[in-house]
Amino acid sequence: MNAPSPVAQLQSRPVPPALLDALGARFGARLSTAQAVREQHGRDEGSISAPPPAAVVFAESTQDVADAMRLAAQHAVPVIAYGAGSSLEGHLLAVQGGISIDVSRMNRVLSIDADDLTVTAQPGITRKALNEAIKDTGLFFPIDPGADASIGGMAATRASGTNAVRYGTMRENVLALEVVTAGGEVIRTGTRAKKSSAGYDLTRLMVGSEGTLGIFTEVTLRLYPLPEAVSAAICSFPSIEAAVRTVIQTIQLGVPIARVELIDANSVRMVNAHSKLTLREEPLLLMEFHGSAMSVKEQAETVQEIAREFGGQAFEWASTPEERTRLWTARHNAYFAAVQSRPGCRAISTDTCVPISRLADCLLESVQEADASGIPYFLVGHVGDGNFHFGYLIDPESPDERERAEALNQRLVARALAMGGTCTGEHGVGIHKMGFLLDEAGAGAVDMMRAIKRALDPQNILNPGKIFAL
Amino acid sequence: MNAPSPVAQLQSRPVPPALLDALGARFGARLSTAQAVREQHGRDEGSISAPPPAAVVFAESTQDVADAMRLAAQHAVPVIAYGAGSSLEGHLLAVQGGISIDVSRMNRVLSIDADDLTVTAQPGITRKALNEAIKDTGLFFPIDPGADASIGGMAATRASGTNAVRYGTMRENVLALEVVTAGGEVIRTGTRAKKSSAGYDLTRLMVGSEGTLGIFTEVTLRLYPLPEAVSAAICSFPSIEAAVRTVIQTIQLGVPIARVELIDANSVRMVNAHSKLTLREEPLLLMEFHGSAMSVKEQAETVQEIAREFGGQAFEWASTPEERTRLWTARHNAYFAAVQSRPGCRAISTDTCVPISRLADCLLESVQEADASGIPYFLVGHVGDGNFHFGYLIDPESPDERERAEALNQRLVARALAMGGTCTGEHGVGIHKMGFLLDEAGAGAVDMMRAIKRALDPQNILNPGKIFAL
Repeated sequence: MNAPSPVAQLQSRPVPPALLDALGARFGARLSTAQAVREQHGRDEGSISAPPPAAVVFAESTQDVADAMRLAAQHAVPVIAYGAGSSLEGHLLAVQGGISIDVSRMNRVLSIDADDLTVTAQPGITRKALNEAIKDTGLFFPIDPGADASIGGMAATRASGTNAVRYGTMRENVLALEVVTAGGEVIRTGTRAKKSSAGYDLTRLMVGSEGTLGIFTEVTLRLYPLPEAVSAAICSFPSIEAAVRTVIQTIQLGVPIARVELIDANSVRMVNAHSKLTLREEPLLLMEFHGSAMSVKEQAETVQEIAREFGGQAFEWASTPEERTRLWTARHNAYFAAVQSRPGCRAISTDTCVPISRLADCLLESVQEADASGIPYFLVGHVGDGNFHFGYLIDPESPDERERAEALNQRLVARALAMGGTCTGEHGVGIHKMGFLLDEAGAGAVDMMRAIKRALDPQNILNPGKIFAL
Repeated sequence: MNAPSPVAQLQSRPVPPALLDALGARFGARLSTAQAVREQHGRDEGSISAPPPAAVVFAESTQDVADAMRLAAQHAVPVIAYGAGSSLEGHLLAVQGGISIDVSRMNRVLSIDADDLTVTAQPGITRKALNEAIKDTGLFFPIDPGADASIGGMAATRASGTNAVRYGTMRENVLALEVVTAGGEVIRTGTRAKKSSAGYDLTRLMVGSEGTLGIFTEVTLRLYPLPEAVSAAICSFPSIEAAVRTVIQTIQLGVPIARVELIDANSVRMVNAHSKLTLREEPLLLMEFHGSAMSVKEQAETVQEIAREFGGQAFEWASTPEERTRLWTARHNAYFAAVQSRPGCRAISTDTCVPISRLADCLLESVQEADASGIPYFLVGHVGDGNFHFGYLIDPESPDERERAEALNQRLVARALAMGGTCTGEHGVGIHKMGFLLDEAGAGAVDMMRAIKRALDPQNILNPGKIFAL
């Protein structure tokens, strides 16, 4: 098992004054070198720190991004795209120096093609703003990685979230991209056609490339008709195992459940305190069913029956939109609820995903280890996909706690890989999981990724020091 | 519009006797240089011809493929993987000489993981053999590109077929691969986890790469529970437009229809003659619904109502498995029925796919042009995805007919691209659509594909002369 080695990536390259002059001439007040602005753009929600970028460009158009990229390329200076700042794996950290291109002002919807169930938007729009913009069409965009992330960032990390069990991830839902390359050229990948066999799948190569192969300036997404009926339910279980076995059987039966989230008793306590709820402080599943009225009823009855077999208690329905929103908001706030439960702490988040048949084994062994460690933690999971997150709540000033938490994470990843799983279901590799990627994919596959990176970014200026060492 | 220029790719490279000696020493009788064997491996179901490969290696293991590849790499000799020989775009043609590696003997199922809804198989197994091998599990593999293609070939061309409207294409259904690289190294891409954000999506890059980036030696696929209920229906329409409008509305309403195929009156005539059926010789839709008994009934009622609005007649049910098989066999034989309708002809197949809202316009204009041309043709389509195929039945000895058919194809592709579509929904680029790819993706994106190709295959020995000129 290769330990993560973020520090090895710290090798700041100089940003020559001539580049800052050229950017200043091109962008005027939209170039900032203010310390506060730089610091805000040099961190994310993860647990690792690095010096901030030398400057931030606020882009407002594809041409802005292309021009900034071309200038940076002339000086061989690293460029990091910035959307909403919600990544968890150090994606935004300027570990090799360089400049940040903030695309958050590129937040327009460019075209809604309701008849084709597609939308094209700029990358800086957040998922919530996107859904707000399309709400009159009767369609919605289902991918929701908890945070109100930007669509560009979600594409760059191949994000997913609670709806992925039914609607897939960004891999399945990005149809086409406009991309600024390392040389500042603008290309398009994919079309609005639902399928294609036209050459290499550049769209899928770009999705999940974490800003290392190009900067997205337009994203075309699939949309879905708002389901005729939606119902949500919450069910408590005597043990994590009972909850997980319920999920496994649901998936294996092919029930098209839209969401099925595991929340452990620790998380329920934290969420109750944070969101002023009174959920039973036991492991629970939070579920949602989408479809016709008849189909939703049928799905829910099937799952209720399975849950009963495994000792599920207090199957409660949330059928009004308000009740549903309250429950899902609580779920999405679990991370913040947890971090607030230990003032001053930082969360080290795990992100393993395993084949569903191994989910119970993987989870239960990892829970035992976490309990034995004495480190406070919470556990939530998109268990329908076999994906779950431990959050180890460490004192950032305590090297001992960090070390013990990383050791737990390493044992968990080793376990998941041995079971045919992955070290990251949805957060990405960043700088935190570079060692794990090598363990998972093998040196040959990582070498292939490196060869692609070198071919498309010969100066290594697109978000360098992420995914793998070059 | 760039015309296809297959002939430009004809630049045969010599195969040195030393390579044949080395292959002979390694593979014995499993190396063949017999003319008949070479010729069989040097053609596909498409309309273009080229000289055959210099030799054929019959591989029986990953090690065989790796060894053959390594020897070929030592001599910088092209290598073309051969599965079932059913591709349509000249993928198997040895336009630059070299050797063929036949993987059809690598046809074992390696593991069925029914609890995880996955299967891992060797690339030479055909889709029908795969479904036969898993039939006792209650699961099935839905992708069916008409021909009984090999799984490896289907992955290499990003194939799909009639079930894709519900279950997706090879893009969505290949979870992981074992790949032999241009240097003869064996790597693995992906895992059995349902989702992952672990680095570049090499699996999706390989799927659809048409043998130009690696040779697949293992393929891990998603499976689906056999639906509790299946029903098929056939419905005739007064016009192609009426049929297509029915489909568009069905998709836009979000009905999870499993299959919906358009068959034009020409094809119905040909199919009736070939399969001894008595279908009404009008444009028809062939549909299939999968789900619970209740959901299938609900879907079918919705579609029946839509069809009625558009003048759909004679909505007939095929509810026994035998009746269904008879109908789908007739559909899958449409291509052969058409080719037999004009003895000695070859079919030039189109493969455009457009956003569903433009399907009627794209189809109807193209039908008018085809009717006006006087060239016999048939039209079938996976219209739920916006994908359809004209087959222009030409006399292969008539340059005039070929030219007129290619002109029809070019106008059709130009129309589809202008509507936001793709030149190939499922057949791939091969040597036939290289010009179209450039029109569709643009020079910048094709240059990016070239850069990837050069990085992963610096000697250009993996199926050279396909997808783009280097």
